[in-house]
Amino acid sequence: MIKVAIIGASGYTGVESIEILLRHPEAELTYLTALPEECGHVAETFKQLKGRLDMEIEPLDLDKLSKKADVALCCLPHKVSMGFVPKLLKAGVKVIDFSADYRLKNLDVYEKYYQKHTDPENLAKAVFGLPELFREKIKGVDLVANPGCYPTGALLAIAPLLSKGLIETKGIIVNSVTGVSGGGKNPSPVFHYPNMNENILPYAVGSHRHMPEMEQIASEVAGEAVEILFQPHVGPFDRGILSSVYSDPKKELSQKELSDLYNDFYKDEQFVVVLKSPPAVKNVAKGNYCHVYPTVAKGKVICFSAIDNLIKGASGQAIQNMNIIFGLDETLGIA
Amino acid sequence: MIKVAIIGASGYTGVESIEILLRHPEAELTYLTALPEECGHVAETFKQLKGRLDMEIEPLDLDKLSKKADVALCCLPHKVSMGFVPKLLKAGVKVIDFSADYRLKNLDVYEKYYQKHTDPENLAKAVFGLPELFREKIKGVDLVANPGCYPTGALLAIAPLLSKGLIETKGIIVNSVTGVSGGGKNPSPVFHYPNMNENILPYAVGSHRHMPEMEQIASEVAGEAVEILFQPHVGPFDRGILSSVYSDPKKELSQKELSDLYNDFYKDEQFVVVLKSPPAVKNVAKGNYCHVYPTVAKGKVICFSAIDNLIKGASGQAIQNMNIIFGLDETLGIA
Amino acid sequence: MIKVAIIGASGYTGVESIEILLRHPEAELTYLTALPEECGHVAETFKQLKGRLDMEIEPLDLDKLSKKADVALCCLPHKVSMGFVPKLLKAGVKVIDFSADYRLKNLDVYEKYYQKHTDPENLAKAVFGLPELFREKIKGVDLVANPGCYPTGALLAIAPLLSKGLIETKGIIVNSVTGVSGGGKNPSPVFHYPNMNENILPYAVGSHRHMPEMEQIASEVAGEAVEILFQPHVGPFDRGILSSVYSDPKKELSQKELSDLYNDFYKDEQFVVVLKSPPAVKNVAKGNYCHVYPTVAKGKVICFSAIDNLIKGASGQAIQNMNIIFGLDETLGIA
Amino acid sequence: MIKVAIIGASGYTGVESIEILLRHPEAELTYLTALPEECGHVAETFKQLKGRLDMEIEPLDLDKLSKKADVALCCLPHKVSMGFVPKLLKAGVKVIDFSADYRLKNLDVYEKYYQKHTDPENLAKAVFGLPELFREKIKGVDLVANPGCYPTGALLAIAPLLSKGLIETKGIIVNSVTGVSGGGKNPSPVFHYPNMNENILPYAVGSHRHMPEMEQIASEVAGEAVEILFQPHVGPFDRGILSSVYSDPKKELSQKELSDLYNDFYKDEQFVVVLKSPPAVKNVAKGNYCHVYPTVAKGKVICFSAIDNLIKGASGQAIQNMNIIFGLDETLGIA
Repeated sequence: MIKVAIIGASGYTGVESIEILLRHPEAELTYLTALPEECGHVAETFKQLKGRLDMEIEPLDLDKLSKKADVALCCLPHKVSMGFVPKLLKAGVKVIDFSADYRLKNLDVYEKYYQKHTDPENLAKAVFGLPELFREKIKGVDLVANPGCYPTGALLAIAPLLSKGLIETKGIIVNSVTGVSGGGKNPSPVFHYPNMNENILPYAVGSHRHMPEMEQIASEVAGEAVEILFQPHVGPFDRGILSSVYSDPKKELSQKELSDLYNDFYKDEQFVVVLKSPPAVKNVAKGNYCHVYPTVAKGKVICFSAIDNLIKGASGQAIQNMNIIFGLDETLGIA
Repeated sequence: MIKVAIIGASGYTGVESIEILLRHPEAELTYLTALPEECGHVAETFKQLKGRLDMEIEPLDLDKLSKKADVALCCLPHKVSMGFVPKLLKAGVKVIDFSADYRLKNLDVYEKYYQKHTDPENLAKAVFGLPELFREKIKGVDLVANPGCYPTGALLAIAPLLSKGLIETKGIIVNSVTGVSGGGKNPSPVFHYPNMNENILPYAVGSHRHMPEMEQIASEVAGEAVEILFQPHVGPFDRGILSSVYSDPKKELSQKELSDLYNDFYKDEQFVVVLKSPPAVKNVAKGNYCHVYPTVAKGKVICFSAIDNLIKGASGQAIQNMNIIFGLDETLGIA
Repeated sequence: MIKVAIIGASGYTGVESIEILLRHPEAELTYLTALPEECGHVAETFKQLKGRLDMEIEPLDLDKLSKKADVALCCLPHKVSMGFVPKLLKAGVKVIDFSADYRLKNLDVYEKYYQKHTDPENLAKAVFGLPELFREKIKGVDLVANPGCYPTGALLAIAPLLSKGLIETKGIIVNSVTGVSGGGKNPSPVFHYPNMNENILPYAVGSHRHMPEMEQIASEVAGEAVEILFQPHVGPFDRGILSSVYSDPKKELSQKELSDLYNDFYKDEQFVVVLKSPPAVKNVAKGNYCHVYPTVAKGKVICFSAIDNLIKGASGQAIQNMNIIFGLDETLGIA
Repeated sequence: MIKVAIIGASGYTGVESIEILLRHPEAELTYLTALPEECGHVAETFKQLKGRLDMEIEPLDLDKLSKKADVALCCLPHKVSMGFVPKLLKAGVKVIDFSADYRLKNLDVYEKYYQKHTDPENLAKAVFGLPELFREKIKGVDLVANPGCYPTGALLAIAPLLSKGLIETKGIIVNSVTGVSGGGKNPSPVFHYPNMNENILPYAVGSHRHMPEMEQIASEVAGEAVEILFQPHVGPFDRGILSSVYSDPKKELSQKELSDLYNDFYKDEQFVVVLKSPPAVKNVAKGNYCHVYPTVAKGKVICFSAIDNLIKGASGQAIQNMNIIFGLDETLGIA
C-alpha cells in the first residue's frame, strides 16, 4: 500500500483527492494537513465524508510527514506551493504539486504571470504530469507538476495535430467554459449563487495564467513555438470544462483523416475517448475521462474537448500520475 | 409624480425597487442612498442598469431627503433600520420599511428574536403592510412595516381559513422553500455557488424570526392566539418562495368549500390568484402575484402558495403599499 | 464473482447500477437487457460509459439470463415488472426488483394505487429491501422488493421514533423535495429544462403511490397502524431527496433523548449518519448514505433526512441488498 | 393605440411578446392565434398570465385578423411562416416575422439551409429588422424579418469594426453560448432537465442556419463578402446568449481606438451599451439591451456581446421594430 499525504487538504482538490483515495485499492490516506485555522475532523470540513473517513486534518509537521507518507499531493495555491515543496521533498516523499509553481520552465514567463520564483532548482527537475504526453518521464520521478485544468483539456484537444505538424502554430484560439468549482472554495461576489446562477461570463481576457502553460507544452509537442489565444469563461454549473479549439490546417483535412489521426494518437489511452460527435461536459463529470471530437468546418479545424476540471483537470490526474510514478496500474482508483 | 427615495439602495431589494420604479408611470426615483463604501454610480453597483438609469448612490443626507422625496423605501437590515426610521419620518417623508423592526407589536417578542428596540414610539404607529389584509389601515399612513417574504406567502395561504375559524389554531405547519436571493447579496460559504447549486437544505429550525411575525398576524386574523411551526429551507434557484401549509380542519371541508372560500376571500384582489392545481414558483417569478391553492388530503387541509420573494415578498409589495398610501391605482408599476 | 444482469438497463437506475457494479470488487456485469428499441451498445445509450464498458444491451432472452447471471436487478417500471419477475425467478436467478410491484403486501392497496396484481404468489414471498430495518430477512432470499426512493428517506427518518412508540401514529407529515432525476428519463413538458429550471412545485397531492408504502412499513415498525400524509415536491436539481418529517411526540422529548435514540438505533449502520445539524442533499449526492437529523421545535418532533434518490433510493440500495443476499461485505461497491 | 395580433402565440416568443405588450402604453393585444390543438385560454397555456390577461388563443381567421389588428407578430417556425405571411399581408396588417423565412436574400442560400422558398416576392421586399443597422429602412415598411437571436448578438458585436473596414473579412469566429429557451418549448431528450442541467455542449458544428444570416448582414455592413465560422453551444441557463467574437485586425488597434469606435458607433443607441469590461448574460436577462465589450488580446480583436435571446434576440426586438414602423418612441414597452 502506498501511503499518501495531502498537503492543503481543506479545498476542493483536497476532497476530490480524498474521495478517489477512498476507492483506491493500493493506496491509503495517512496524513491530511492544512493551515491551522482549517484543521479539525475532516468530516466537519467536508460533511459528505461523514461516516466514511475518520481522520483529522492537522497542521503540517515535516517529521510526521516523513514517517507517515510515501507521496504528498500538494494542493496548495500557486506562489504558496513553492515555499513548501522543497521541504516536502527533503522530508523524503515524492511530490505531486497541483499548483502552477513547477509547470513553467521559463522563469521569466513564470515571474511575469506570478512573482519571483523561489525554487528554481526543483523547477528544473519537475516533470509536467500530463500522462498522455509525458508518461515515460513521469515514471519514478520525485516531483510532478500536475497540469492546470484548462491546459489539460486544451492540450489533449490539439496535441495530435501539433505533433504531426498539421496546423498553423499561430492563430490558435482556445475558447473554454469552466464550471464554478474551478474558482475554488472561497466565497466571492462573482460566485455568490444569485450572481452566478443563470449567468455566463468571460474573464481574464488575454491574461489568464494558463495561456503560457498551454503555449509551453504545445510548443514542446509541436517542436516549434506555438501561439495560443486562450479565452476562459465561467458558466452556471459545478464541474467540467468544455474547450472549443479553433485552428488553421496547413492543408485541407478530411473528417476521416482527422478521426484516424486522433484514434491512432490515443489508441492506447484509457482516459481519452475520441468521439464521433461533439462532447458534453455532463458525460465526463465525476470521472477522469477526456472526451475529444476533432472536426472541420469552413476551412478551420475545430477540436472540442470535455473534462471534469477537478478530476482529470486536477485530483484524478494527480492519482494517475501517482499510479505511474509508483508503477501501479494507471487506472487504479479512477477508472 | 411621487418622488421616491431608496435608503439602503445597494442590495437586492434596492435594485428590485429601482427596476419597478423605472416602469412606474406616476412615481420617480429622486434619491438613492447607501453606506459611504457602497456609494457611486448606480449602474456600477448594478450593471443591469447600464444605459437605463443615470444616478449616483449617495451617503444619506436628511436635508436632501427632505427636499427631494415624498416617500422613502427603507431597505436597511433589521436592527439597523430602527436607528434611521425616526430620522426619516422627522425629515417629513413617509416611510415604507423593509426590515422587521416595525412588524412585531410585542416588544418582548421583538427583543427575544432581535435585540432591544430603540423606537417603540413609531413601532406603535406602524401599520403592517399586507394590503390584502390591511388595506384600509395603510391608506395615508406615515409608516408601513413591509411584511417579511415568508410571512407574506404563508399568511396569504391561510388567512381565509383563519378568518372564518375553520382550522385549529394549534399545530399549523408552514414548510417553505426559498430561492437564494432571500439570503441577500453578501457572499458566504453556504451560498457560494458550488455549495448551493444542486443542493437544498433546511435551516433555522424552530428559530426563524419570521415565525413570530406569522403568528402575530395570523392571530390578529383569527381573533385568537395562533401557533405556527415555521420551517424554512433554501433551494437552488434565484427567486421565489413555495410554502406548503398544513393544518387541521375543525370539521371536514370539501374541495368545493375550500375553493369557494378562497375565491370569495380574494375576489377583489388583483395580486392573489386562486388556482385549481398546485402552484409553481416559476409562474410568479419577477411578478407581484401570489398563487394559492387550497386542498384537502388525508384529513388535513393543505394550502400551497408561491410568490417572488423579492417582489411580492419585498419590493413589489412596498410599491403596492406606496400606491395605496398615496391613493394611486394599486397596480401601478407592478401589474 | 457474482454475475449480475440488469433487466431494463436503459434508464437512470440502470446506468446507476452499472456505474456501481463497475467499481464492485466481487460482482461483474454479465448481461444487460432492454426493450428492443432501446438496445445497442451501452455506451451509445450512456455516453458517460464510453471507454469504460464495452457491452451490448440486448433484448431479454431467459435462457441466456439463466446461463449468464446469478442475480437480476430488475429496473422495469411498476405494473410492467410483475409480468417479468416470475419468469426471471423461474430462470433460476435471484431478483432485486426496483418497481413497486412487490412492495405492498395488501393487494387492495396495491390495486387501488396501481392495477390488478398478476403475481400475488411471489408478492407474498418478497422481502422489503430496506436493510437497516429488515437485514435478517434479506439474507439469502430470492426476491427483494427494493424500496421506493421517498419511503427510504422518510422511513429512515422516523423508524427510531416509531419503533419505540414515542410519537403519535396519526398526523405524521412527510414533506419531501426530490431532484428531477426522480421523474425518470423520458422528456415531458414539466421536466423540460426551461420549465423546471428556477422552479419548485408540489405534485400528486394526497395521492402519491409512495404514501401507502410508507404507511405499510411504518405500521410494521410501530406495531400499529400509522397514518402519514406524504407531500412530494420537485425542485431544480438532479439528485437527492430532502424529507422534512413532522410528528407529535407522545411526551416531551429533549434534544439529547432524540440524539441518543437515533445514535443508538443506527449505531451499527454504515450508511445512516446521525447529524447534529440539518442535512443538505449535496452532502449525500452520488453516495449510498442517508443523513438524518432529529430535533424538536414548538412541541413537534422534526426529523430531516437526505439521500440520493438514485443511489440509496434505488441502485445503491439494490447493490446493498445484493451484497446481503449473497453474504458479502454489505458495503462493497457503495462505500 | 396600435392593435397587435400574435400569430403562433403558444410558444416562448409568443408569451414574451405578450408580457411586453402588457406594459406597452401605446399598443394593445387584440388577437392571439395558434394551431387548433394549442388554443384555449391564454392563462392556461401560460400560467404566469393568470389574473393578468383574460384572452383566448384562437385558430387563425384572416377576416378577424383584418378587423382586429394593425400589425401581426408572426411567431411561427421557419418554413411554416412563409405559408402564412402572404395571407397576413393581404389581410392588410403589417407583419413582423420571427422566422428565418424572410431574412436570407439569396434564395440559393435559403434553400440550402431550409427548403424551397414559396414566397420570393415578399422576401424581396422584407427589411432585416436590426434597428441599430437598418432603422431608416424599417420605418413604415410592411414586412420586417426579425433577426435571429445569434445574429443579433454577433452582428452588434462586430458591426463597428466591419463598417470601418478594420478587420479581415475572412477567419472571423463567432463562439456563442445560448440558454436553453433558445431551443423552444418542445420537450426533447437533450433539453430534458436531468440531461441539460450541469451540462454544456456544442452543436450544429459548421452547419447552423444562423451562419449564412450573419454572413449576409456582415457582408452588407462591410461592403464586401465576409466569411464567418459560427459555433453555437447550449448551456444550463434559461436565457441569454454570450458571444465571443474573434477577428484579425488589419492593423494593430489600441484599446482606446476600439472603445472610441464603439462608443461613437453606438452613441445614439438606447439598447446597446459599450462596456469597459466583459459582459455577463445575467445583466441583460429579461431586457432588450445588448452589452458589448471590444478588446484586443494577443494580436486578435475580441468582441464580446450579451443579449437576452428571447427579448433583444426575438420579442423585444420585434416590439422595437413595431415602434419604429409606427413612428412611436422606439423604447416603449421595452425600456
